Amino acid sequence: MYIETIHSPSDIKKLSMKELHVLSEEIRQVLLKKLSEHGGHFGPNFGMVEATIALHYVFNSPQDKIVYDVSHQSYVHKILTGRKEAFLNPEQYDEVSGYSEPQESEHDFFVIGHTSTSVSLAGGLAKGRDLKGGKENIIAVIGDGSLSGGEAFEGLDYAAELNSNLIIVVNDNQMSIAENHGGLYRNLQVLRESEGQCGCNFFKAMGLDYRYVKDGNNVEQLIEAFAAVKDSNHPVVVHINTVKGKGYRFAEQNKEGFHYCIPFNVETGQTWTDFSEEEDYATLTADYLLKKMKEDPRIVGITSGTPTVMGFTPEKRAEAGKQFVDVGIAEEHAVALASGIAAAGGKPVYGVYSTFIQRAYDQLSQDLCINNNPAVLLVFWGSLSSMNDVTHLCFFDIPVVSNIPNMVYLAPTCKEEYMAMLEWSLRQNEHPVAIRVPANGVITKGEVTDSDYSLLNHYQVVRKGEKVAILALGSFFQLGEEVADLFKTKSGIEATLINPRYITGLDNELLEELKENHSLVVTLEDGVLDGGFGEKIARYYGPSDMKVLNYGARKEFVDRFDIEELLRNNRLTKQQITEDILQKL
Amino acid sequence: MYIETIHSPSDIKKLSMKELHVLSEEIRQVLLKKLSEHGGHFGPNFGMVEATIALHYVFNSPQDKIVYDVSHQSYVHKILTGRKEAFLNPEQYDEVSGYSEPQESEHDFFVIGHTSTSVSLAGGLAKGRDLKGGKENIIAVIGDGSLSGGEAFEGLDYAAELNSNLIIVVNDNQMSIAENHGGLYRNLQVLRESEGQCGCNFFKAMGLDYRYVKDGNNVEQLIEAFAAVKDSNHPVVVHINTVKGKGYRFAEQNKEGFHYCIPFNVETGQTWTDFSEEEDYATLTADYLLKKMKEDPRIVGITSGTPTVMGFTPEKRAEAGKQFVDVGIAEEHAVALASGIAAAGGKPVYGVYSTFIQRAYDQLSQDLCINNNPAVLLVFWGSLSSMNDVTHLCFFDIPVVSNIPNMVYLAPTCKEEYMAMLEWSLRQNEHPVAIRVPANGVITKGEVTDSDYSLLNHYQVVRKGEKVAILALGSFFQLGEEVADLFKTKSGIEATLINPRYITGLDNELLEELKENHSLVVTLEDGVLDGGFGEKIARYYGPSDMKVLNYGARKEFVDRFDIEELLRNNRLTKQQITEDILQKL
Repeated sequence: MYIETIHSPSDIKKLSMKELHVLSEEIRQVLLKKLSEHGGHFGPNFGMVEATIALHYVFNSPQDKIVYDVSHQSYVHKILTGRKEAFLNPEQYDEVSGYSEPQESEHDFFVIGHTSTSVSLAGGLAKGRDLKGGKENIIAVIGDGSLSGGEAFEGLDYAAELNSNLIIVVNDNQMSIAENHGGLYRNLQVLRESEGQCGCNFFKAMGLDYRYVKDGNNVEQLIEAFAAVKDSNHPVVVHINTVKGKGYRFAEQNKEGFHYCIPFNVETGQTWTDFSEEEDYATLTADYLLKKMKEDPRIVGITSGTPTVMGFTPEKRAEAGKQFVDVGIAEEHAVALASGIAAAGGKPVYGVYSTFIQRAYDQLSQDLCINNNPAVLLVFWGSLSSMNDVTHLCFFDIPVVSNIPNMVYLAPTCKEEYMAMLEWSLRQNEHPVAIRVPANGVITKGEVTDSDYSLLNHYQVVRKGEKVAILALGSFFQLGEEVADLFKTKSGIEATLINPRYITGLDNELLEELKENHSLVVTLEDGVLDGGFGEKIARYYGPSDMKVLNYGARKEFVDRFDIEELLRNNRLTKQQITEDILQKL
Repeated sequence: MYIETIHSPSDIKKLSMKELHVLSEEIRQVLLKKLSEHGGHFGPNFGMVEATIALHYVFNSPQDKIVYDVSHQSYVHKILTGRKEAFLNPEQYDEVSGYSEPQESEHDFFVIGHTSTSVSLAGGLAKGRDLKGGKENIIAVIGDGSLSGGEAFEGLDYAAELNSNLIIVVNDNQMSIAENHGGLYRNLQVLRESEGQCGCNFFKAMGLDYRYVKDGNNVEQLIEAFAAVKDSNHPVVVHINTVKGKGYRFAEQNKEGFHYCIPFNVETGQTWTDFSEEEDYATLTADYLLKKMKEDPRIVGITSGTPTVMGFTPEKRAEAGKQFVDVGIAEEHAVALASGIAAAGGKPVYGVYSTFIQRAYDQLSQDLCINNNPAVLLVFWGSLSSMNDVTHLCFFDIPVVSNIPNMVYLAPTCKEEYMAMLEWSLRQNEHPVAIRVPANGVITKGEVTDSDYSLLNHYQVVRKGEKVAILALGSFFQLGEEVADLFKTKSGIEATLINPRYITGLDNELLEELKENHSLVVTLEDGVLDGGFGEKIARYYGPSDMKVLNYGARKEFVDRFDIEELLRNNRLTKQQITEDILQKL
């Protein structure tokens, strides 16, 4: 196998075109085996096999520097830059991250996971090179939906002013995670149809030189194009037309489903695990919204390129019709759009992963909250326990969202409470409301909860006790129950257990009352401590005799962590917390 | 005067073309008088006189809805929509805000101050209209530099998919606050030169219909163009070529200087106040950086459209040459670019207003801090006391910047400390460093301060006392001194006074030590309390007997406030704080 002879990019340069073709197929087989066993970003990497080979054939990494956008399509790059064992050998599968990672290799320059950053970062490498008088090539690889993010546009706009070498490879696979959206993608289509010849060219309009590669999965065509732009003295776009999931039938047929995969049967393309029977908040949300949409034409679901986070599968998107909008990967626009719709009397519901809501901080503050428009945001996966790549951490949304005035950020603790809050958020017209969708599985309490949340910052006392009060927020409510139970077992004391429900404000009356027969307040939040909920409780009690213990995660970037270990390291197990309480009393 | 007959937009429709021309001149005289006496956004409004008249002549506001980007160019709109007294009558000058404001008029739809939002917000109004089955026109007015922000691009990209009425007026005055930057503006130039006819058209490439108006200060041409697109059943761009500052010689000659004005002499165009002798942090910064740039070619200043915030006047920009980059209004790109430059071994220094750094939260987190690149950020005007428009509040930067892991956010308390921290930030290669430039005037202590800040989170004890410790951060350090003095006068007790210096971390050792002979810790920060510095101190002492009082601003949006009143309302005067301390002891 040729793949075994590739220890660094220089080994690629020794191969003939025919051998490179064989190498491509070998790499696909390796990826198919690993990803079917291990899971990962399937479609983006299958589409980029030839382009990555061609890049390393033409350019001299790491002197020449390749920056991959999102970098979930850098698997082939990793295979070719000395990290192939992590793809060939199942025992080493986890030795590389799913994204580019400078700590792994001198061929990687940034840890990148959010989209649309590559042109700006590569622009920085180019500017740094120019300041230092270097001559190397700087290459940004962007595409797979990430052109629609504003940061990419800002980067392209700047690139035109750089007046020096910057090569921007646009990987046009006609897809985002789901299908592409937006006017720009129509221009890409026209460019494909005219083989790059049409006069109205987005990239040229941005002041950039341009070159088209008709078959972006043809290694010869790619090598020719890259060789032609190598050492260019000005920024140039190489637009390559690739097939997402190329070479694996099921992935080519179901591009959205195979964007990211969990382990599956190679023969059938079906996952080994059947989740269809399991209740989840995504499906609950989509089904509820679809029902409401039929009753009320003003309701509209919004996604920024990840419709299934809120349960909107292709079928449900079709069912919703004009009442569901995918703006592409463009979180800023999604929030501003929601504010505008709400201002016009519509009922927008924007569903977004915790890790991505931070891409729209200014829009949350300016476009939405200053204007106090009653848009609804559903923040999914907000938890220490969801994604564990450093680029996709989901535990910073509380500091991001909750410190903005006017925002009402709710933390439901079970299915019934979530549905009640969602229903209220659509009914009310007073506030921008965000809901931190529970991230610890669908827990049913079977109880009727309050249906009206318009009396803001009114916490719910679930168990009335003494001495110790536990404020257990959202997904950590069940942890709070466990701590209260264990504490009772150990001490005989019934602690007061409180469901705060509102992340964005304090129940001053209740907090004041607690002083009467409590000496310790414990806060639990499923997120980072800094700038979070617990600190506000600590501030409230700062001048008083009340002791406060805040539980959550330390402010740090952690990567591919074991969640149990992370929880233990932050003293977030019920045993540790109970121990601390007993010691403190 | 015709202006006196205009009570609502319907009155404009009664005037002849000739009368509209006279009205334009009357409005310019009114603006000249008010702005020369009162200050305000000069150039943007002078350029938009005819376009605003034409918009109201053609469309039927408020049924048809006009959304002004940044909205600092909505003065003429205010004059024409029942608010002219606030421009004619000096006693009423302050009765309108400098931005669009729904609470003032049914003709305003959003409070807007940050740029690049209008297309997205108008897109929301259009989508809301479509959901409800309305037929009104929705108009976004964008330009004056705000096309370069990513959110504008995301909005344009979405607009093409709207398939219904949305009219986007691009006010092309060939300027941002300073000159325009970026490839897009070259396309605008080509469009102007070809009178909208050139084949490579950015807006058409984005999938939008397009129309050009050669003289955007000619009311007939504008009326013709707007009438042609009125009731359009699809999104269309009307590109109007205007002159920033049109009609006032000094403003046309010095477009950057007259973007915003303070009171000036109409005859000479000179401000009444001469600030040139006064020392300020902008000039100190530019002069220092220019000196360092000459010694070190790796140093590069970066601005996102506001070069003078860091002292880079046109002359100093010219002097810096390639070592100064204006990316246009594109904060996201600015941060990512800085990270890229630092990764390449350059020394980027990005200067930005506090209110705008929040536009790049995700880039601070992902592009910069996860990668831990040693870029330098200078956050200017971070204070309760700087800008007081609700859209430009400068007191949220601490929660935004300081809760991101790896970031080192420094708070100097005087000129010497600022210069020492700036020098260190450029010298070190370990951390992304942000400096919150003091915002309470240039205070000189005349002392040599530490030159090395690499021992992170090491607070400085300025006065060693007992019982009470005052942690006085950055611009509030002098308030801390005053409180300590007043407290000593009243109680005879010398309080410990601490300059924390580091916003991003705790000096655990010192905080622990304080427990020995202090019972109260007071924190002072010139910003919002929620998610800020003081809460972290409260969390630290939560489990202990130490009492903590946090001083800063309540989480709320405030508009055109009187600073003394705001400080009093938040108990931020030295008397109030001292009173609280005495009461608490």
